[in-house]
Amino acid sequence: MSLFPREEYLRRIAATRARMEREGVDALLVASPENINYLTGYAGWSFYTPQLCIVDAREELPTFITRQMDVACADYSVFLPSTNVLGYPEHYIGTALRHPMEFIAEWLTARGLGTRRLGVEKSAHFFSVRTYEILVAKLREATFVDCDLLVDWVRLVKSPAEIDVMRQAGAIADATMRAATDAIAPGVRECDAAAALYAAQLRGTSAGGGGVPNSVLMPAGEKTRAPHLKWTDAPYANDQGVNIELSGCRHQYHAALARTVYLGTPDPALGRLAVAVIDGMGAALDATRPGVACEDVVKRWDETIGRAGYSKASRIGYSIGLCFQPTWLERTVSLQRGERTELQANMTFHLMCGMWQGAHNLVMSETFRVSETGFELFTYFPRELIVKP
Amino acid sequence: MSLFPREEYLRRIAATRARMEREGVDALLVASPENINYLTGYAGWSFYTPQLCIVDAREELPTFITRQMDVACADYSVFLPSTNVLGYPEHYIGTALRHPMEFIAEWLTARGLGTRRLGVEKSAHFFSVRTYEILVAKLREATFVDCDLLVDWVRLVKSPAEIDVMRQAGAIADATMRAATDAIAPGVRECDAAAALYAAQLRGTSAGGGGVPNSVLMPAGEKTRAPHLKWTDAPYANDQGVNIELSGCRHQYHAALARTVYLGTPDPALGRLAVAVIDGMGAALDATRPGVACEDVVKRWDETIGRAGYSKASRIGYSIGLCFQPTWLERTVSLQRGERTELQANMTFHLMCGMWQGAHNLVMSETFRVSETGFELFTYFPRELIVKP
Repeated sequence: MSLFPREEYLRRIAATRARMEREGVDALLVASPENINYLTGYAGWSFYTPQLCIVDAREELPTFITRQMDVACADYSVFLPSTNVLGYPEHYIGTALRHPMEFIAEWLTARGLGTRRLGVEKSAHFFSVRTYEILVAKLREATFVDCDLLVDWVRLVKSPAEIDVMRQAGAIADATMRAATDAIAPGVRECDAAAALYAAQLRGTSAGGGGVPNSVLMPAGEKTRAPHLKWTDAPYANDQGVNIELSGCRHQYHAALARTVYLGTPDPALGRLAVAVIDGMGAALDATRPGVACEDVVKRWDETIGRAGYSKASRIGYSIGLCFQPTWLERTVSLQRGERTELQANMTFHLMCGMWQGAHNLVMSETFRVSETGFELFTYFPRELIVKP
Repeated sequence: MSLFPREEYLRRIAATRARMEREGVDALLVASPENINYLTGYAGWSFYTPQLCIVDAREELPTFITRQMDVACADYSVFLPSTNVLGYPEHYIGTALRHPMEFIAEWLTARGLGTRRLGVEKSAHFFSVRTYEILVAKLREATFVDCDLLVDWVRLVKSPAEIDVMRQAGAIADATMRAATDAIAPGVRECDAAAALYAAQLRGTSAGGGGVPNSVLMPAGEKTRAPHLKWTDAPYANDQGVNIELSGCRHQYHAALARTVYLGTPDPALGRLAVAVIDGMGAALDATRPGVACEDVVKRWDETIGRAGYSKASRIGYSIGLCFQPTWLERTVSLQRGERTELQANMTFHLMCGMWQGAHNLVMSETFRVSETGFELFTYFPRELIVKP
């Protein structure tokens, strides 16, 4: 019942085990919901309670331990046999008296892992300090090794099957941006435009519906100078911009897309900014191909917008793909100055060229893969400042 | 520009400082996005990067430190003066070479807090082990005190202003459930019903639009035995149930609501289960009033469904209110056996009576506040098994 065939998961696990061997760990304790999904297929929305996927270097298949009631969610999403999914009892939930990691620590001990080298994900959002400290206290003879982002690095280069899902996500992103830009008009409440946007995102395309939407941003008017604000229920006014950042989501794979809509006649300065950003994005994409360092792509952007008199302090993109909450970004590779990682075919990026300058603010982005010879866009929405006069 | 008046935030901060004094901490480092919002009004969607709100026991107002580009998000949401919002530079983002906590540790040292007793939230989702370890390493003379859920306990009893927002969320929940149950029909793709659901949630009511939707669950057919699954893009079939768990969301305050829709003629056993659950919920609500212990409410549920031949291993509810991602639940008080916390007026709960029995599965819930004499529902959707023959 898993999304991908068994062989896909076995390749991912093998790549993970190879990295584990390099780190010298006997088992990896995976808490990040993306990484659990990547290694097992698990798609339950249960990561707000502690759960772990344990990759034992001695075993072919990992074991997933979650809350008892969520074992049923695993039944419909993992490729693992039921012997590799365990539930801890309900009395571990919602109490300060017990913690699920006590159950998991006992399991690790029973498996002979209580005295071994255990890798943990120290910056995973859903692997709390409490969770870690209980493991450390219960497994006093174990050695804990920071294997943060280990699986994330495996995820960096996508498989052909993943690329296919991301293409579908890109088509959903385009349809969603169309619905959003159609809905935004003077007098329409921002929340009603958001409703049109989300509905389009979930309907998806005839090829497939959308997954759980994430992190949609759409500040309007003066607030466009603030990158990470949502909608309000105020109506749109004439002569204001709306910065839309959304994603198409298919099976939790994301293709993000950003555009600015302007209601009325934009200030020529905003038009000039749009031209510079479009030129800069074109230059960055032209520089994209396997073997080029991320920072060299950014250099082309910097040079191009610099000639037009602009600069941007923040990164111009990041790896994107499989994500749950709270965002769609991967935390391995950014398109930014100083990032020397070389591009490889089937790395996937959100090229996000937001320019928040105060008086004039504009967002424009594409999601693409590095192809064998250059790049392939997943998003095809017209790359322009969208003016609704 | 904050949602509530300044006085509301000052009361919250005062209550937080009173608890800090009991814990003997000189400053509280708040990482949970809900708690940051609660104390400052901050509504930027930036918690995927490290940020902290620092409540200094010596100061009237907290200081919020976030990524530089998100200071603009604070401009439009916090009640604090701009002197109490700081941004760390963009070069701390997306790199393994630097971490924002280094910046924040330096700030704490400059404020004379580097040698003091600092409270931290050890189970907050967005306060990672990495974040904590960097603070500990940089502030070697500080003493770190686990103040997990300290602000969450302040949040447990809602203010009249919060109750008013939750009533609005409840009205949105009702409208959203109506849209969802209207949309679900044989032949309709699950994702299209989800689109109708989300659109209704965001449109909200004429009184106000919806906030960011969260955690909607709607497994169908055999999958109804799995509590935490989303929709697929398969069409609904005849003679299957759909378990809908949604929330109305207004300014990130949630009122959750669950119902089961059955397409066709349900097995009499499902009907009997529904009657037992409705009776059990009624008994639990009848027992609800200030001074009653949570476990005594649960006892009434247990007795009532027990007489009908049923039992439920998991809790029957939890505190609900202000939440960002990944869920709408608060982690202080549950309605479960052994929970001796006494109800107080303006505590708010999601009474969630999901029964996942395998062959027959049913979800039914309400969101309510404890009133001065009993309870007040926020959700009014007909409390029944919804049958669409």
